[in-house]
Amino acid sequence: MKLTEDALIARIGPTARSRGLVLGIGDDCAIFRPGAGEELVFTTDLFIEDVHFRRRDHDAASLGRRALARSLSDVAAMGAVPRFCLVSLALPPWADGKWFGGFYRGLKALAAKTGTAVAGGDLSHAPQLTCDVMICGSVARGKALRRDGAKPGDAIYVSGPLGGWTHRREIVPRLDIGRGLIGRATACMDISDGLSTDLRRLAKASGVGAVLDRGLPVLENATLDQALHDGEDYELLFTAPPRLRVPGHRIGTIVADRPGRVTFMGLPLKPRGYDHFHR
Amino acid sequence: MKLTEDALIARIGPTARSRGLVLGIGDDCAIFRPGAGEELVFTTDLFIEDVHFRRRDHDAASLGRRALARSLSDVAAMGAVPRFCLVSLALPPWADGKWFGGFYRGLKALAAKTGTAVAGGDLSHAPQLTCDVMICGSVARGKALRRDGAKPGDAIYVSGPLGGWTHRREIVPRLDIGRGLIGRATACMDISDGLSTDLRRLAKASGVGAVLDRGLPVLENATLDQALHDGEDYELLFTAPPRLRVPGHRIGTIVADRPGRVTFMGLPLKPRGYDHFHR
Repeated sequence: MKLTEDALIARIGPTARSRGLVLGIGDDCAIFRPGAGEELVFTTDLFIEDVHFRRRDHDAASLGRRALARSLSDVAAMGAVPRFCLVSLALPPWADGKWFGGFYRGLKALAAKTGTAVAGGDLSHAPQLTCDVMICGSVARGKALRRDGAKPGDAIYVSGPLGGWTHRREIVPRLDIGRGLIGRATACMDISDGLSTDLRRLAKASGVGAVLDRGLPVLENATLDQALHDGEDYELLFTAPPRLRVPGHRIGTIVADRPGRVTFMGLPLKPRGYDHFHR
Repeated sequence: MKLTEDALIARIGPTARSRGLVLGIGDDCAIFRPGAGEELVFTTDLFIEDVHFRRRDHDAASLGRRALARSLSDVAAMGAVPRFCLVSLALPPWADGKWFGGFYRGLKALAAKTGTAVAGGDLSHAPQLTCDVMICGSVARGKALRRDGAKPGDAIYVSGPLGGWTHRREIVPRLDIGRGLIGRATACMDISDGLSTDLRRLAKASGVGAVLDRGLPVLENATLDQALHDGEDYELLFTAPPRLRVPGHRIGTIVADRPGRVTFMGLPLKPRGYDHFHR
């Protein structure tokens, strides 16, 4: 069979439905009809061979899941419910029709599990596999979890132990935890570039400082340094009033300080997490 | 100055506002509050060095405009008004902070002109410049122009002459023309892969055939073959009842035939437009 764009698109097949999605794959645009009182959140994440992953570490289905899971983690961090996604995919010469089918099988399985319709995207070629997944999520009006609401005195939490080298592990987007934090967390984000970098961002956005406790939850076989600075954890980092019951591990306290200043064991903690342009 | 992700994001600066955009660049997701009776359209387009463009043909600002214009053309094809965009950008080693500034200057100028807010995106690195622009547009409920409504007897139109090698020319998204076709055109799409390929798609989606007239509008210095098959025209291709006054050049008639069959000068016209996987 000749590999054409239209043939590849046909191969994607039916995907999970989403309430409000009037028109999916196949036109110039997807069409979505929002419900009353619905606020929408949007995120997009690049996923590029030899930048975000190595081909030898993953089969096609695993890469499809992973490409979607990264964006779902951002939706989880807003406390939102995923509704639909657009998938831009540029295939390298080594990716044939079989690989394409596997990629979409993995992506669609996670999409179905999380209620995310595949509503469209773009298809192209490139020297290395390049993917960009945009997700639209839904949340009640005014209720989305943002980064800028942390207050001095709030406790700081992570949804799970850190330092996990998810480059190889499965990414589990913390959608249920995020949804459960609506109306309770004062600020929330996902840890994709490392705790030291991302906590600084949250504190800076909120105009506060942060003090980390000594006892960080660290994954088995990971070092403290990895827990502090490694990216790709995809756990939620959030703040809440100290006496409120929330899931997760308490790791510190928000303080009135220079915005973005993070302290650990009495010393300033420099942001040494992942940065695409400064390594 | 050290080039960091946060420094680059800060350099993007303020962008055009958009009604309903509650939160833009800087959190895990952008937040958008749709208005009552509003239906949203979504599209995304990859724009990759040596696949969609060559660096020597464009300066940074021209590439920024172009990356956005490609997606705006899809929004125009739905008859929608652009509201906001997400820009995913992977920078190669040759693209420095100055280049980045120029790219966003070009993109933001077109965004401002068309009322498109830059609401977020992703930033990464890659061996060659890679960009993916998602746009959300707005249209009155149930009014979006789709590909699947063409009826036998409808006249076929294009919004301008074809064969124009816009690889080098400016792309002008036909937003005003698209908006003016709401309630008048029976089907509409933009020509990005060439008339022969895209008219076949429109006819197939509508379950009809199409007969092209002899006298196609062809741009100066372009051949008939280029007008029929070259991609990147970014003109609108649409159908309307034959006696309705619409802008553009009439190029043929929709007929009851095998879905997707296009005839030109009495012979079937093969889809020889651009295909990423079959050249």
